[in-house]
Amino acid sequence: MTRKTVSVITESQYTVKADKTIAALLCVEEGSEVNERVVRLSAGNTTFVHARSLSPLERMPETMKEQLMRADIPIGRILRSHNLETRRDMTELEILERQNTFDGIPVLSRSYKIVHNNHVLMWINERFPIDERWSL
Amino acid sequence: MTRKTVSVITESQYTVKADKTIAALLCVEEGSEVNERVVRLSAGNTTFVHARSLSPLERMPETMKEQLMRADIPIGRILRSHNLETRRDMTELEILERQNTFDGIPVLSRSYKIVHNNHVLMWINERFPIDERWSL
Repeated sequence: MTRKTVSVITESQYTVKADKTIAALLCVEEGSEVNERVVRLSAGNTTFVHARSLSPLERMPETMKEQLMRADIPIGRILRSHNLETRRDMTELEILERQNTFDGIPVLSRSYKIVHNNHVLMWINERFPIDERWSL
Repeated sequence: MTRKTVSVITESQYTVKADKTIAALLCVEEGSEVNERVVRLSAGNTTFVHARSLSPLERMPETMKEQLMRADIPIGRILRSHNLETRRDMTELEILERQNTFDGIPVLSRSYKIVHNNHVLMWINERFPIDERWSL
């Protein structure tokens, strides 16, 4: 859309223990290990998307685990390289105001689950700032 | 993109017997039954996409077969309603000239396979006319 190269900038990446909320989201046991990754997608000097993903490590093939935790590889490319058959279940689509994701600019927020073998492989929340940056 | 409602217009729909080419494309026996569907996607009075799909009927769940052969339901929605886990393998991306799909206007043509359980569930060719109709 921008005709510029999009870069994936990893803002943070941790292994966390699933609390009650995360456990319910991913259908895993409380306390199990989850990779939490926050990235921003930018083109030129503009950030267009803020994305947060939660992936239960117990369900991840070993090579995928490495890719996921290593670097700035987009999720789509990781799934692609493993030839995984998946479906995406959209769970939420809403406008949120006064979030600090984009310094208080209202965002369109959507969440979905990437499902493989009927298990949640990844939960993703994407946020798109609602302002004139999309008038390309 | 157009901010108008997109309609799926079925141009033709047949059950055909797989010839050598189709059999190779779908990895089925020659002579097996295949659903061939040609649709156009329009918004306003403009056609934006011409799509041809080939689906081996032997691999189709019964209810899906009915949806596919019945009416103007987009493929994505059909897959969605069956909760199928799939992957898409892109096979071709090229510019074709002097095709009658859009009265000789050059088209961007892409083909891909929708794969489920490591079998081709559907082969799809989409053609996008290369002209000013995309300046929205």
